[in-house]
Amino acid sequence: MTINNFHMRIIIIGGVAAGAKVAAKTKRMLPDSEVHIYTKDDFVSYSSCGMPYYIAGDFKDWQQLIVRSIDEFEKSGIHIHTRKLVTKILSADKKLAVKNIDTEDWQFVDYDKLVIATGAEPLIPDFANINSKKIYTLRTLNDGISLKEGMEQAKHITIIGGGYIAIELVEAFVKNKKNVTLIERSPFILSMLDEDISALVQDYVLENSDGLVKIINNDTVSEILGENQVLDVITHKGYGIETDMVVIASGVKPAVELAKDAGIKLGVTGAIKVNSRMETSIPDIYACGDCAEKINMISNAPVWIPLGSTANKEGRVAAINISGGVEDFEGVLGSAVLRYGHLSISKTGLTEKEALKQGYDALSVVITKRDKAGYMPEVKNITLKLVADKRSHKLLGAQAIGCGDADKRVNTVSVGLIQGITVENLIDADLTYAPPFSTSIDILISAAQILKTKLDS
Amino acid sequence: MTINNFHMRIIIIGGVAAGAKVAAKTKRMLPDSEVHIYTKDDFVSYSSCGMPYYIAGDFKDWQQLIVRSIDEFEKSGIHIHTRKLVTKILSADKKLAVKNIDTEDWQFVDYDKLVIATGAEPLIPDFANINSKKIYTLRTLNDGISLKEGMEQAKHITIIGGGYIAIELVEAFVKNKKNVTLIERSPFILSMLDEDISALVQDYVLENSDGLVKIINNDTVSEILGENQVLDVITHKGYGIETDMVVIASGVKPAVELAKDAGIKLGVTGAIKVNSRMETSIPDIYACGDCAEKINMISNAPVWIPLGSTANKEGRVAAINISGGVEDFEGVLGSAVLRYGHLSISKTGLTEKEALKQGYDALSVVITKRDKAGYMPEVKNITLKLVADKRSHKLLGAQAIGCGDADKRVNTVSVGLIQGITVENLIDADLTYAPPFSTSIDILISAAQILKTKLDS
Repeated sequence: MTINNFHMRIIIIGGVAAGAKVAAKTKRMLPDSEVHIYTKDDFVSYSSCGMPYYIAGDFKDWQQLIVRSIDEFEKSGIHIHTRKLVTKILSADKKLAVKNIDTEDWQFVDYDKLVIATGAEPLIPDFANINSKKIYTLRTLNDGISLKEGMEQAKHITIIGGGYIAIELVEAFVKNKKNVTLIERSPFILSMLDEDISALVQDYVLENSDGLVKIINNDTVSEILGENQVLDVITHKGYGIETDMVVIASGVKPAVELAKDAGIKLGVTGAIKVNSRMETSIPDIYACGDCAEKINMISNAPVWIPLGSTANKEGRVAAINISGGVEDFEGVLGSAVLRYGHLSISKTGLTEKEALKQGYDALSVVITKRDKAGYMPEVKNITLKLVADKRSHKLLGAQAIGCGDADKRVNTVSVGLIQGITVENLIDADLTYAPPFSTSIDILISAAQILKTKLDS
Repeated sequence: MTINNFHMRIIIIGGVAAGAKVAAKTKRMLPDSEVHIYTKDDFVSYSSCGMPYYIAGDFKDWQQLIVRSIDEFEKSGIHIHTRKLVTKILSADKKLAVKNIDTEDWQFVDYDKLVIATGAEPLIPDFANINSKKIYTLRTLNDGISLKEGMEQAKHITIIGGGYIAIELVEAFVKNKKNVTLIERSPFILSMLDEDISALVQDYVLENSDGLVKIINNDTVSEILGENQVLDVITHKGYGIETDMVVIASGVKPAVELAKDAGIKLGVTGAIKVNSRMETSIPDIYACGDCAEKINMISNAPVWIPLGSTANKEGRVAAINISGGVEDFEGVLGSAVLRYGHLSISKTGLTEKEALKQGYDALSVVITKRDKAGYMPEVKNITLKLVADKRSHKLLGAQAIGCGDADKRVNTVSVGLIQGITVENLIDADLTYAPPFSTSIDILISAAQILKTKLDS
């Protein structure tokens, strides 16, 4: 599919996951093209998802998070422009206005194809005295480096929010013997899961944190007092938490200001609307990664689920289309996994509450079973929830937690979901069995059998 | 689906996996029925697959292999008759002739529904001086108990055959510091895999056996000399191996003599032919488990792949049909997994050689990639092979090996296979990602992308 002898200038705004992928693949497919990444950041092509493990100390050097260095990009003929802020897209003229963050100089840059890969940015509640050096977010690699330095000085850390990143940070802080208070607005942490599952996770976190972690649920922060050594976090319920640092991890929003300003259509979720080829509403402008809206493959509804794995895949699809090929991105299932201690927590497809909200006549089953034969020394439990549609018997989603081998069971369901798998189909699955790897009837099959009985009764 | 007030006499011949499952489920569904298991064995309802781990010493008490004790069966109203050999099925009269192995007494037993779950039996090459107490097989629990006792006395053990059980036994013997010589007729052990994969496994076994293991390939045994303390194993190529004991693990055959004698139709594979409801050619006689033929869900060809997971599922289907329900067994993919040391070895669907043999225009890809993000301390490699059909782009099978989390990747493919997944579909899979669990583009997706490029070129 390589098209040679075609000189085209491709500008990519943002270079973390989707942007870096587009650049690398486009240059490979169109060796004669001119490929540039502009980013306001100091770095490109790094693993944001790895930052909690760097902070934890699982490895020493943040440079290990760099997937592809600026040197490597330049050697392959891709031009990297760091600390360059794109301030305007002039789509009628196919030009960008770019500001040099250090010199404050401006320049105009022409493009034949433009890719917006501006990612997402943290939601900062307006109470936050964000100028305090003791209030952190975790989005860029610079954020990660600072947060680790901050953590090393702190004895007590307050985390606002209880999503994936918050829980990964709790793990990192506990590993470093820090006291942690987490404030979560929902009844349990990980509110993207159904409560029967997230309640179990919260129990596990509290029981496996050496007494260092306190979780305040159903509460939000009203203000943060102090700016210097010690902060006071005040909640609406009246807690006052004296703390050495605060991490705001209460969600992200798509970084769409630039696109919106250029007249590019946003979707109902507020992210940039794209078609399956990653094209925006303006010709020759693509968007991919966390700034772009996605389609849920089960409900076909627009969703905004910003994940690194999706960003990579969308980057690939954009690159193929830019390079003259035809490739579609089929959508997402919201598949995700995280670790806390020995526990893996994973989901794919719709949770029961999402399914009900979207009008499905949903039925679910939750079972706990061993991950291996009971007599194997390393046997652990898994808790699995399956959600199905009563009418069609189609599976809608799965959630699994366990110190055993839980997460890959969710992937097994996820491949079924894109094919419209029914509960009956899952019963027919021929899964591998040996005592060190599963029970003779795997938990997936057992859960499907029980769900089938419920559906039939 | 429970039918009450129906007094029916259900006789099951064999009680390991399929037989025990039929008994338990039928009695649950039809509480008023009379359910009997007849077995020539001393035990029912045990995990054959667990015996290598008992022999290894992973747990101390063989009783842990018992899934459900005879007492438990009797308490739930299921009658267990051990050491009772069924010598004849008189289907016209719906009677069995049964011999008491200890007293040599005979009796006739009536049935309304009969289930043949006689399993498989080891293939014993005719050279074998099988009367020697130093020659072992591993099929029944008694075999497992004797084999462990034998191993404990031995310094050097010879294994004839290199399949799943043979390799699990190599692991067990190495753990117990025994010297092992394995004789395999194929160029590499695990000849059910493609050679590019089995060659890697053989290397791993040799490199991870503390120098205790020797493998002789492309050779078979011509005779075994001696009967008492030390045996001499002579191969066709001229090796003479002085050894303390021999394990014959060169395959199994379906135990069908009783069925054949009764006029029950066998399939092309030599196993008992059954329909999807597990019914044989004679009314009111079912067969399930290792004695029954299966259908390959990809090729729709009859196959004989004896596995414990399948036996359980077939037992469930037979029980539902006997109890007045309607349930079909859809077939198998030959999904299997085993462990050697830290390496997992798994497969599902057709290997490349099987696919070519069955007339597919097969194309494959083999890639090695990390199982987790490269900076995570516990990262390991996985090698994955995908096989697809050039014409339809449908996936035909997968094989994976790795010290990392390889086996569950094969299960992820297996659920796709029953739905007719294409290479393009697998590229669209939305698999979970976090650094402790996978790379941002999972090896499954990478392999599918490369295979797609090969298919398109």
